[in-house]
Amino acid sequence: MIGRKNKVLIICNFTFSYNYNKRMKKIIIASTSTLHGGKYLEYILPTLKEHFKNCKTILFIPYARPGGITHDEYTEKAKEAFAQIGINVKGLHEYENVPKAIANAEGIFTGGGNTFLLVTQLYKTNAIVAIQEAVKNGTPYLGTSAGSNICGLTMETTNDMPIIYPPSFKTLGLIPFNINPHYLDPMPDSKHMGETRETRIKEFHKFNTQPVLGLREGSWLEVLGDKITLRGELQARLFRQGKEAEEIKTGADLSGLK
Amino acid sequence: MIGRKNKVLIICNFTFSYNYNKRMKKIIIASTSTLHGGKYLEYILPTLKEHFKNCKTILFIPYARPGGITHDEYTEKAKEAFAQIGINVKGLHEYENVPKAIANAEGIFTGGGNTFLLVTQLYKTNAIVAIQEAVKNGTPYLGTSAGSNICGLTMETTNDMPIIYPPSFKTLGLIPFNINPHYLDPMPDSKHMGETRETRIKEFHKFNTQPVLGLREGSWLEVLGDKITLRGELQARLFRQGKEAEEIKTGADLSGLK
Repeated sequence: MIGRKNKVLIICNFTFSYNYNKRMKKIIIASTSTLHGGKYLEYILPTLKEHFKNCKTILFIPYARPGGITHDEYTEKAKEAFAQIGINVKGLHEYENVPKAIANAEGIFTGGGNTFLLVTQLYKTNAIVAIQEAVKNGTPYLGTSAGSNICGLTMETTNDMPIIYPPSFKTLGLIPFNINPHYLDPMPDSKHMGETRETRIKEFHKFNTQPVLGLREGSWLEVLGDKITLRGELQARLFRQGKEAEEIKTGADLSGLK
Repeated sequence: MIGRKNKVLIICNFTFSYNYNKRMKKIIIASTSTLHGGKYLEYILPTLKEHFKNCKTILFIPYARPGGITHDEYTEKAKEAFAQIGINVKGLHEYENVPKAIANAEGIFTGGGNTFLLVTQLYKTNAIVAIQEAVKNGTPYLGTSAGSNICGLTMETTNDMPIIYPPSFKTLGLIPFNINPHYLDPMPDSKHMGETRETRIKEFHKFNTQPVLGLREGSWLEVLGDKITLRGELQARLFRQGKEAEEIKTGADLSGLK
């Protein structure tokens, strides 16, 4: 009997180590930073408190510069939001050695804005590989909008205007598919002849094979190790090459998607 | 008196030569191919009849492949529309030597679709310089949507999804500014947090200097030599770096814009 008890204890210990392993990926990929009528990050703050619970300070990547605001202005905005859950924020632009700053970060948050600008700057500062390494090693990551786009295999399903030419459209590949943030359903009464989001993503699939997850505003993906789960109140819309688009329920396990 | 009459005749003759000079640029840059509820090119056919009046056959560039349709399917669509005004259409993909086909064309029409795909293919086939030369030498050109986007200095104000990585964002530069086709006014009651078109173009101007003309659906630019005129029934919206956006009336002379 004593031998059996010991065995059970060993198993419990193993489970505990797995959940808190520093090397487990821990990512939140959010469609948007802000819900209509809400404040910056407000809707997701309780989740972020848990996500970054081991962080005193997180590193903010302000490169996407929404509306062209400065790195300082953007970092200030992130600082104000995170102050509400007792977490400090430092901007990546404050560091001379970008890869080192990323490697030393307790947590990382990449804000939204223009994905072309973000990716250009990430390549220019050699941040891409540094973020991949840090996340693989368990540094918790949060992306919103453009910061979520870059978690996919490529930025080729962004909605942004190509205001600058990046060295590549390849992105972090933290998940094995692409994201379309701010996913917008077609408006049945629209007289505008520009393409709907669904048409655009179907066009993407004429030339590319990876699935695309359309994340509606208020939805996010939670990545824990290899497990990917849809969170938030809404459904997401999944597009796969050669298949009909389908609705994915919140709470769904998307780990097998690739 | 006889001497004076001769002088008048000479002046008339000069005017005639100027209008029909083969080397004069002759371009139509249309926001869209199709108006809501209308057929392909229907609204602009009378204008095209005049524009291509010296052409028996025009060369169609189907590279933008809207919805991923094939080059053949797309060329068939253009053929059907131009048949109504007695003009034949050949697809550029039917020729082995692309630059030569462009140089020999009586008229050129680049259809809409995905600008990233169009520009990638134009570079791959060495069509860019060939089109620039042909248009400079007076070959009449028509662009709709993506085919209009490429008339500007860069494709950096396209609305399209970056489904493929082009070798450059630089485009034909047939006019000294950029185009935003399918220009869409902000919807005041929208709860969607994605950027409005105006926000995106303002973001573009944080990093780029050239003006951007937002062409609403049903508007087009007529370029005759150095003269650029707004045509169609609607106003256009002009964005310039560091200035308030302004409305431009139809019939306005935009020749000085750069």
